[in-house]
Amino acid sequence: MPKRTERQRLRACSFLRSDCPLACSLDVVGDKWTLLIVRDLFFGRARYGQFLEAGEGIPTNVLAQRLRRLVEAGLVEKARTRSFPPFTTYKLTRTGRTLGPILRAIEAWGSAQIPGTRGRKKRR
Amino acid sequence: MPKRTERQRLRACSFLRSDCPLACSLDVVGDKWTLLIVRDLFFGRARYGQFLEAGEGIPTNVLAQRLRRLVEAGLVEKARTRSFPPFTTYKLTRTGRTLGPILRAIEAWGSAQIPGTRGRKKRR
Repeated sequence: MPKRTERQRLRACSFLRSDCPLACSLDVVGDKWTLLIVRDLFFGRARYGQFLEAGEGIPTNVLAQRLRRLVEAGLVEKARTRSFPPFTTYKLTRTGRTLGPILRAIEAWGSAQIPGTRGRKKRR
Repeated sequence: MPKRTERQRLRACSFLRSDCPLACSLDVVGDKWTLLIVRDLFFGRARYGQFLEAGEGIPTNVLAQRLRRLVEAGLVEKARTRSFPPFTTYKLTRTGRTLGPILRAIEAWGSAQIPGTRGRKKRR
């Protein structure tokens, strides 16, 4: 079976409700955890345990399911290190990195509108 | 009891997980339906039945819960018309209208990255 491109994989995970680009995007990243994992990937976190420690207290079953879904959608790639013992790492694909402007827009809105939120030092 | 400002109401609906502005914003609008309702409000839809007809087939219990939550968060206001019979209308508050750039960022991402999505004519 030929390997599907990132765009084909993204297409397969969306179009659950309509062909509106907003609805299709939300099919893929519209939940309260996925974009936090993407934020952490932008911050350079790469290992399962690092996402668990992120501060929001993501439940481990939710993390596993969301990572699997991000990999399926072609936004994240999973690799095994060659170290001994080997371990699994995750990183954003080229398509995954295009999520930056969405994160910035949501973060800017929270900073401007919700009193008391605290910006991060590291920016995308 | 003094009436809470929109910002105070938004504060009360967020901060469920951390003080990260991204996480707080997602506490309020991070699900696959809320931003579609906000999109429809930007398109000028105002009545309960109009949201139900939007094309994505939102279940009525989900719509009712999300509208209630948007009102609680100070992003949407609910009014009764003076017509006979009166009916309920919804519209974005001043704070609710500041969600425009988030919608545009997500919509632009979907249009650019997901093959086959179709843009809307009416823009915010």
